[in-house]
Amino acid sequence: MRWANFDHEGEVWCGLVEGDAVLVAAKGCLSQHLGDLQSLESAARDGTKLMLTDAKLRQPVIRPGKILAIGLNYAAHVAESVSFISNDKPEVQKWFNKQSTAANGPGSPIHVPKVSQQLDYEAELVVVIGKHGRHVPREKAFDIVAGVSCGCDCSVRDWQKASPTMIMGKGFDTHAPFGPHLVTLDEVGELGSQAIRCYVNNELRQEAKLSDMIHSIADQIAHLTAAFTLEPGDVIFTGTPAGVGAGLSPPTWLQPGDQVRVEIEDVGTLENPVIAEPDTTRIG
Amino acid sequence: MRWANFDHEGEVWCGLVEGDAVLVAAKGCLSQHLGDLQSLESAARDGTKLMLTDAKLRQPVIRPGKILAIGLNYAAHVAESVSFISNDKPEVQKWFNKQSTAANGPGSPIHVPKVSQQLDYEAELVVVIGKHGRHVPREKAFDIVAGVSCGCDCSVRDWQKASPTMIMGKGFDTHAPFGPHLVTLDEVGELGSQAIRCYVNNELRQEAKLSDMIHSIADQIAHLTAAFTLEPGDVIFTGTPAGVGAGLSPPTWLQPGDQVRVEIEDVGTLENPVIAEPDTTRIG
Repeated sequence: MRWANFDHEGEVWCGLVEGDAVLVAAKGCLSQHLGDLQSLESAARDGTKLMLTDAKLRQPVIRPGKILAIGLNYAAHVAESVSFISNDKPEVQKWFNKQSTAANGPGSPIHVPKVSQQLDYEAELVVVIGKHGRHVPREKAFDIVAGVSCGCDCSVRDWQKASPTMIMGKGFDTHAPFGPHLVTLDEVGELGSQAIRCYVNNELRQEAKLSDMIHSIADQIAHLTAAFTLEPGDVIFTGTPAGVGAGLSPPTWLQPGDQVRVEIEDVGTLENPVIAEPDTTRIG
Repeated sequence: MRWANFDHEGEVWCGLVEGDAVLVAAKGCLSQHLGDLQSLESAARDGTKLMLTDAKLRQPVIRPGKILAIGLNYAAHVAESVSFISNDKPEVQKWFNKQSTAANGPGSPIHVPKVSQQLDYEAELVVVIGKHGRHVPREKAFDIVAGVSCGCDCSVRDWQKASPTMIMGKGFDTHAPFGPHLVTLDEVGELGSQAIRCYVNNELRQEAKLSDMIHSIADQIAHLTAAFTLEPGDVIFTGTPAGVGAGLSPPTWLQPGDQVRVEIEDVGTLENPVIAEPDTTRIG
């Protein structure tokens, strides 16, 4: 099944995507139903039908409790990163947070920040957690997964590089777009052979197989839950392949007017325009 | 004013603390009222009065949207950290996340993890955000602050050291206790001259003045909001003084049975027992 959140008549709704329509299931975010999508399917089948052209899709979890992301998880990306992060292949999984306020949806603009021009893309498979998990062994990891989606781990390279913890360069507002759908595991089949690609203005920049990951999704969930609880609505960005803008010669940053497209076979296509940060100042 | 969340008859309530009593203001977490504590005060003055002995206090924000923490923000701690983190004084503010699931309250146990024995304390002043802020200049930083509290940035040193991003060692469940009260800025007065201290089993381990911070609270808020939006209920751990267990010779870790006490003048006292992690396994 393919699930989505969407805006309709000024509110967030969730529903089941079939072809060019969405079967409306309930008011509110999918995140409240991730542990029991079967029941939500019954509601959707009894609900009204909207054309997708009448429903602006939002990210599959409007406001994740946590957004976790793993760095340096494709070997070819580790190799290219030496030029701009100068890290060796990490011996253990290298995790950082993207701020929950960075969550963004399909079609919505990514901001080139006021404070930096070094905005970069990173195409990633996103895992959405559906059930609680702590001390989850790798062989049970998928028991707590609701589904997968496409994501772009937008990165502000000078801010990322300024501190070894990286989080300031990874958490800018609008910089965690994911979607367009939450695709359930039965729908997507075994993860591995699918290609993941990133295009900027229709130019292919990144391409790999999901099986090229160094640390598998199961290993990631086992490692994270050794330390803390994953909860329904938490989101994991699982690493990016080679081909990011910082690794090009010369480095090539995203500019206002660019279009970033993440494609993952069997999962979907996430597309976002890039714009200059508007006036976002807010005090109170 | 001193505000607190507390458990009463199986639910969370918030109220105004006066002496050994709490004036009950509303059902639910303080976080829903941080932008308008004046109105909440009226409700509290009209409400019933509970003795603090009948109300188990919880952290001032039950589930923060974000928990941000700054590393290496007291010069003497930077010096001692060379022995166990081998970092130089960072040129820019060094930020990491503690996971939102790590939030914990006064009196509640801190777990020695199953996967590590290297549990350490870090006494910190905690800032609770009360209003939205983006691109907040330092001179307006306190406009978005609801108040302050005491916190302990519990750190699992081997997991922290295993990755330069540090977050795996900083985000274990139970490892972000803060409280006991949210103390408003008019109540606490100018921040700076107050002493911050940490005791383990009544032995003084850390002691400094808040004015010893390298990056002030105003500078912290200006830096964070250059990148992303701070929201009501977000929480900032503002750094720890010298004297952590990892800096002792030999390094001295927290053990089950220990009591950790963070005292900040004019702010309060946060006390937590240390226990071995119970069976926390959860899948589903």
